Amino acid sequence: MALESLRYRRGSLEVLNQRLLPGQLRYERVGGVERAWGAIRDMEVRGAPAIALLGCLSLAVELAAGAGPSEDLGALEEFVGQKLGFLLSARPTAANLGREAERLRAFVRQRVETPGVTPEQLRESIIEYIEGLLEKDRRDNRSIGAHGASHILGRVPGGGPVTLLTHCNTGTLATAGYGTALAVVVGADRVAANGDVANKIGTFQLAVAARHMGIPFYVAAPSSTCDPTLASGRLIPIEERPGTELTHLGGVLLADPEVDVWNPAFDVTPHELITGGIITEWGVFAPSELCRALAERGEH
Amino acid sequence: MALESLRYRRGSLEVLNQRLLPGQLRYERVGGVERAWGAIRDMEVRGAPAIALLGCLSLAVELAAGAGPSEDLGALEEFVGQKLGFLLSARPTAANLGREAERLRAFVRQRVETPGVTPEQLRESIIEYIEGLLEKDRRDNRSIGAHGASHILGRVPGGGPVTLLTHCNTGTLATAGYGTALAVVVGADRVAANGDVANKIGTFQLAVAARHMGIPFYVAAPSSTCDPTLASGRLIPIEERPGTELTHLGGVLLADPEVDVWNPAFDVTPHELITGGIITEWGVFAPSELCRALAERGEH
Repeated sequence: MALESLRYRRGSLEVLNQRLLPGQLRYERVGGVERAWGAIRDMEVRGAPAIALLGCLSLAVELAAGAGPSEDLGALEEFVGQKLGFLLSARPTAANLGREAERLRAFVRQRVETPGVTPEQLRESIIEYIEGLLEKDRRDNRSIGAHGASHILGRVPGGGPVTLLTHCNTGTLATAGYGTALAVVVGADRVAANGDVANKIGTFQLAVAARHMGIPFYVAAPSSTCDPTLASGRLIPIEERPGTELTHLGGVLLADPEVDVWNPAFDVTPHELITGGIITEWGVFAPSELCRALAERGEH
Repeated sequence: MALESLRYRRGSLEVLNQRLLPGQLRYERVGGVERAWGAIRDMEVRGAPAIALLGCLSLAVELAAGAGPSEDLGALEEFVGQKLGFLLSARPTAANLGREAERLRAFVRQRVETPGVTPEQLRESIIEYIEGLLEKDRRDNRSIGAHGASHILGRVPGGGPVTLLTHCNTGTLATAGYGTALAVVVGADRVAANGDVANKIGTFQLAVAARHMGIPFYVAAPSSTCDPTLASGRLIPIEERPGTELTHLGGVLLADPEVDVWNPAFDVTPHELITGGIITEWGVFAPSELCRALAERGEH
């Protein structure tokens, strides 16, 4: 059974509280951006694509409930901009949410400038735009799975069976429905212009081991994870998590109280170790070619 | 503070129950080989040298309490042999215990054949022999620490500071007092004739990462861990632990109940990845030279 991290229908959004897993499987109602802000900050939801979707969908829920100005296009535009700015403050390193917010602002701007658009039509079009993101996420994940599977199986004599090693939360929980890397090897939180990849700590060591063993190493990530403004992985900010994540379990101290902890959440795998390729919804690319290929498709 | 895994004085032995760490620090009385057998089987005590010491010392405690025949040299020899055989059945892969048991049997044989030895003298000499093992363990660990520190610091311009990464239970708990690898990088459960090393799972991947980064990789192990009868690491039996060690915590299921688990406790690091050397109580050796060097010292 595939777990959904988000459940959405027009006017209603629920998030699976991942901090309670695996002990409890609990979906919690997200009535608006304030609750989404808390879920993002407290890591109830994880994975760059899911964070972006949760934030945008929480705004759609508020808009569907009639929140914000109804008489004035400019006031509604400002309302949306403020809500997006607030969401971004929950986890400033979440690149996907930042990019989606920027695009949504541009979309709203363009609609506001379209002659004859009423505030009600603007509101409806923003909700539909955000619902389109959810659809695209699901479509992209199916594409990533299909591209990855055909690429990998195509390189195996006889077509399989294939043993895949995956690392970290690469499944359905990191996106809204299908997941990125279950059909392949690791996911990515951010991909730099040169193809360096930031992902959950331990990824680099796996990539080194894969090269040592002559096993192809793949990264599966939606193209939205790529950040062409960062020349290399050295420029990707690495979030440091509280040391208590390692010293405590369920609030109980498990380590010597005097132990110092450095707990970076991600590491950076240099592109030359991604020997298999980066699997996106557009196909499988060599890391060094990814940015150019996406630019040609108008993705960045 | 250095934790002691074993506390011994003539007639009295206590073992730190490592299964209760870090929540509880509890030493439990070991009145004889039966209790030691349980502690070894249930992994209350871990690490090849500590297992060997616990087994032998539990026999010393029984002998000090007057257990076994007192009138006849041959009967006492048989009693010791049976106790050792029973201890070995607790964890057949514990190489150190096997070797120490063999040596103790040979020692007893030689004493029995010495003219004029009384059963009481034999009993006393066995206890002293076993107490000598404990002394030797402590002495060896201090030597390993000193050899490792001077070797590593001698290769650092200016003498330091040095950052060391250690893996697994390489500290004082794996031996009776000082620990082997805290002064250095990883320990070893068994070293084959060609210098391949079996150690806690994850060691191989660390060794691969160290080579990739150009960082010297050391193994710290008492010479008793070396097994010249095994030509290479491929011949080292790898213990497989229950899957519940990964799926459960404190008796609580944390994983999908349908998940299959393969849980090998050790992996084998090929000698070519041990780029620093193997640190023993005799000094630091290249993996390929270790067996010959020990043979020259009459160690094997």
